[in-house]
Amino acid sequence: MNHALFEKHEKTLAQALDAIRTRGYWSPFNEMPSPRTYGETAAADGEAAFKAQLGQPFVLEQAGSSGTVGAEHSPFGFALNIGYPNAEPDALIAAAQAAQLQFRKAGPKAWVGVSLEILARLNQASFEIAHSVMHTTGQAFMMAFQAGGPHAQDRALEAIAYAWDAMRDIPQTAYWEKPQGKNPPLAMEKRFTVVPRGIGLVIGCCTFPTWNSYPGLFADLATGNAVIVKPHPAAILPLAITVRIARQVLEEAGFDPNVVTLMATAPNDGALVQALATRDEIRLIDFTGSTANGDWLETHALQAQVYTEKAGVNQIVIDSADELKAVSRNIAFSLALYSGQMCTAPQNIYVPRDGIKTAQGTVPFEEVAQSIADAVQKLTSDPAKAVELIGAIQNKGVLDRIEQVTKLGVPLLASQRLVHPAYPEASVSTPVLLKLDARRDEDTFTQEWFGPIAFVIATDSTRHSLELAARIARTRGALTLSVYSTDEQVLDAADEAAVSGGVALSVNLTGGVFVNQSAAFSDFHATGANPAANASLADTAFVANRFRVVQSRRHVPQRT
Amino acid sequence: MNHALFEKHEKTLAQALDAIRTRGYWSPFNEMPSPRTYGETAAADGEAAFKAQLGQPFVLEQAGSSGTVGAEHSPFGFALNIGYPNAEPDALIAAAQAAQLQFRKAGPKAWVGVSLEILARLNQASFEIAHSVMHTTGQAFMMAFQAGGPHAQDRALEAIAYAWDAMRDIPQTAYWEKPQGKNPPLAMEKRFTVVPRGIGLVIGCCTFPTWNSYPGLFADLATGNAVIVKPHPAAILPLAITVRIARQVLEEAGFDPNVVTLMATAPNDGALVQALATRDEIRLIDFTGSTANGDWLETHALQAQVYTEKAGVNQIVIDSADELKAVSRNIAFSLALYSGQMCTAPQNIYVPRDGIKTAQGTVPFEEVAQSIADAVQKLTSDPAKAVELIGAIQNKGVLDRIEQVTKLGVPLLASQRLVHPAYPEASVSTPVLLKLDARRDEDTFTQEWFGPIAFVIATDSTRHSLELAARIARTRGALTLSVYSTDEQVLDAADEAAVSGGVALSVNLTGGVFVNQSAAFSDFHATGANPAANASLADTAFVANRFRVVQSRRHVPQRT
Repeated sequence: MNHALFEKHEKTLAQALDAIRTRGYWSPFNEMPSPRTYGETAAADGEAAFKAQLGQPFVLEQAGSSGTVGAEHSPFGFALNIGYPNAEPDALIAAAQAAQLQFRKAGPKAWVGVSLEILARLNQASFEIAHSVMHTTGQAFMMAFQAGGPHAQDRALEAIAYAWDAMRDIPQTAYWEKPQGKNPPLAMEKRFTVVPRGIGLVIGCCTFPTWNSYPGLFADLATGNAVIVKPHPAAILPLAITVRIARQVLEEAGFDPNVVTLMATAPNDGALVQALATRDEIRLIDFTGSTANGDWLETHALQAQVYTEKAGVNQIVIDSADELKAVSRNIAFSLALYSGQMCTAPQNIYVPRDGIKTAQGTVPFEEVAQSIADAVQKLTSDPAKAVELIGAIQNKGVLDRIEQVTKLGVPLLASQRLVHPAYPEASVSTPVLLKLDARRDEDTFTQEWFGPIAFVIATDSTRHSLELAARIARTRGALTLSVYSTDEQVLDAADEAAVSGGVALSVNLTGGVFVNQSAAFSDFHATGANPAANASLADTAFVANRFRVVQSRRHVPQRT
Repeated sequence: MNHALFEKHEKTLAQALDAIRTRGYWSPFNEMPSPRTYGETAAADGEAAFKAQLGQPFVLEQAGSSGTVGAEHSPFGFALNIGYPNAEPDALIAAAQAAQLQFRKAGPKAWVGVSLEILARLNQASFEIAHSVMHTTGQAFMMAFQAGGPHAQDRALEAIAYAWDAMRDIPQTAYWEKPQGKNPPLAMEKRFTVVPRGIGLVIGCCTFPTWNSYPGLFADLATGNAVIVKPHPAAILPLAITVRIARQVLEEAGFDPNVVTLMATAPNDGALVQALATRDEIRLIDFTGSTANGDWLETHALQAQVYTEKAGVNQIVIDSADELKAVSRNIAFSLALYSGQMCTAPQNIYVPRDGIKTAQGTVPFEEVAQSIADAVQKLTSDPAKAVELIGAIQNKGVLDRIEQVTKLGVPLLASQRLVHPAYPEASVSTPVLLKLDARRDEDTFTQEWFGPIAFVIATDSTRHSLELAARIARTRGALTLSVYSTDEQVLDAADEAAVSGGVALSVNLTGGVFVNQSAAFSDFHATGANPAANASLADTAFVANRFRVVQSRRHVPQRT
């Protein structure tokens, strides 16, 4: 059963399928906000659309809503005052179920075609989404555009490609003929139907509302499931726009738009989400957020397949380097980028207490630590430039942590409040760096301190650093590990530590690639092999359980 | 990294990979106990090996055993008196962990090569395994040979093929080059390492110790995990032989044999298994058995990926037929085969109370019921022939159920104790058939009555029959659904019922194929879409979570 939208996007899909196998660089979505790609008026139109939405109800015709809900506040210093439909869970689930029954019958090519068309429309809305991401997460505009727009769309396409790849392996029919010696063979035709699990629930986070939600959303949709999108109460708008676009495409394609619905909530929605997540109709859950909430879902929502990305402790091991300055510059950028509010941002930097070898001789621990602090200081000293890198602080919890952590180590670099030139009310804070000792401060550095907080930690040796890195990744979770060494034996040991910790390794990053960055189609984001996540974005395991196969067999005449 | 055993079996693997995509008939293992395939003395040698083992300790050099354990009793009427090493869980886990570390480093081709070599050796031991299956499960010899030998080996190969297919999709290295406008591109090499989860625990059942355990065992092994095999206390020998062969192959290939170990237990091993299954080191569990035990694992062994096959209610819907006799004959065979002790055996047969249409006109409900009873009676009237079909009753629980159920409906055919001509002490009972009413007896027929127990159930209509079939499959679980109809509209409705119930459908079986039979490489056994099983044997979803991928990336010079 072909579908016009599948045919329309078949070439892009074929390229994506090739990309997930070869894992080189590829993206169909331009990460630069270029007028040539997006249109001369796209930037202005997108900003205008965002501004026009402020203070207004968000229009979304969907079942079972009464009144509005929403209390978003831009980290750049103003209230969004947008009212979203206040959906009633029973009505939403009933509507999703009814819509899914019809959608299910359309088959894999329709599911994939609709998903790809939604993605194309989202790409066109990248500017509007960028502003909405910026003013809910605190990301600077360029990052909000890239991570919230094309990079998130890349991750969605990647999930769709894996989903299609898994489904296309199942033949629609098969002819089975078993010899029976001298008797005529037994001959049967078998039909195989891909059957979605039912309804997926996608629970978004407040720092990367689209990037972290799109893989689950599109993996569900591409395998024929209905999806209820539950954004973080602090970052509803980017996903509300996404849902609106999805519903438009569904409707245009002749489907019930309730295949994709929005469950917007007020802050402190824990009880509501727990009740929703444990409903028998919810068969798939994708969650990004705290370890406490993720663990709760994994242990309580047993009726569903649950995919979680939770807290972790990302680490850097410095053993040796040709040039310390290049190392420090790269690390400083990683620490400063979006004020460390990335799940991939490093926190623990291990340096042997006896110093490291460089081309200029051994550099003592104190100098290494100071070099990193100086690089961060330099990157963040000019407020006008700094804010375009560090953005704003998403929530007060992050500011509280900065305050709290400062008492726990030896000060290396204090966090400073900056005044944003364009948004004087914005909450902007530069990173805090502390010196810790591996033998004394383990209670501090084995926790995740989400935000612009990092520790330079004195260890006994690089072997000790790697042992810590592997153990902490394995037991506390981690998405990234970075190592600097000029010694191939150390790099082999780092590989082994990465495998043991189940964490992705980056080696000697001193140029334009940063450990926080994860490129769709090439880098697997998270491994599923340590407590930071129980799945990878995206791989075959991420999609294969989102559908089942039901077969039917009957005798047919022998084919000659 | 190539491996000699991978190369040795590469052609078979390639054929298996083709088979799981095309899903026609294929098997590399001869299901007939032919001297030409297995060798002139194979039958006698296998029987002799089995007999020589009776009353003897089972030799298996493995870590941490003290004393012996084992209390198997052949359903054909004698004690096996075999003592298996009584393994100590702590020591077994420690040995498995150590062995797994080394095995892990050998990589996917070694894991797959070793798995395929074990399988080839198991095939050579098919006669010994057949006798061991016969005298633990109660299967007649031919079934024990086929289901316990070549068919189980087929299912193992299928799992290995899926595992290899999932792993080969991950490139070992990738070159990534991202353009940077006028600046030189960013260039990196990425390495991807397939990392097993750790230790798998395979929990066998007492009716199909090899067929149901091999998929999990080989899926684990082929993805580099160590495996602890925990047979049902009543059916240890077939898996003990399997473990012994696996250990021999591992040792010959230069690996620590503790990659595969045996955890034999005495009856009533529930507490021991629960303690083992919830150990943090156990990362994969494959279970076949009761719903109570399977549910317990799914809700308590949260540190592991848990794959379960549990109870279900298999159903037949009779709407209409060209010739009732052919229908009855086929159904009777399915009911009698191994005394209904198959997870795929039908239990509920729905017939409209107003009768069914046939080429000879409408046949009333009573006549349909009687026709099935007569066919069963005919199949089982001659004890010498009957025992080769129905085998023996595996355990007293089945006999108790026959007794218990008889009071719950209108007698149609009583169960009879037969005397086995060769084994006078064997426990042999023919099927019991009862008439029930869909409106009155739902409490009875919505339960699984495992064993030679079936109900002919009067319904309001075929629509009613299909509604029951879908609902019971969805809520109580089912592995098979069978429908008889000459009306394409009814068959379409049956397809929809099968999808809704998440159950495999067989249509108008009147010849040499029976609903209980599931052919490897062609039929998906279980769907994972209803409570009878949370996974299918086998598909991509069955293997994709048994390993993770850990990556490493570093800058390299630009390739031109």
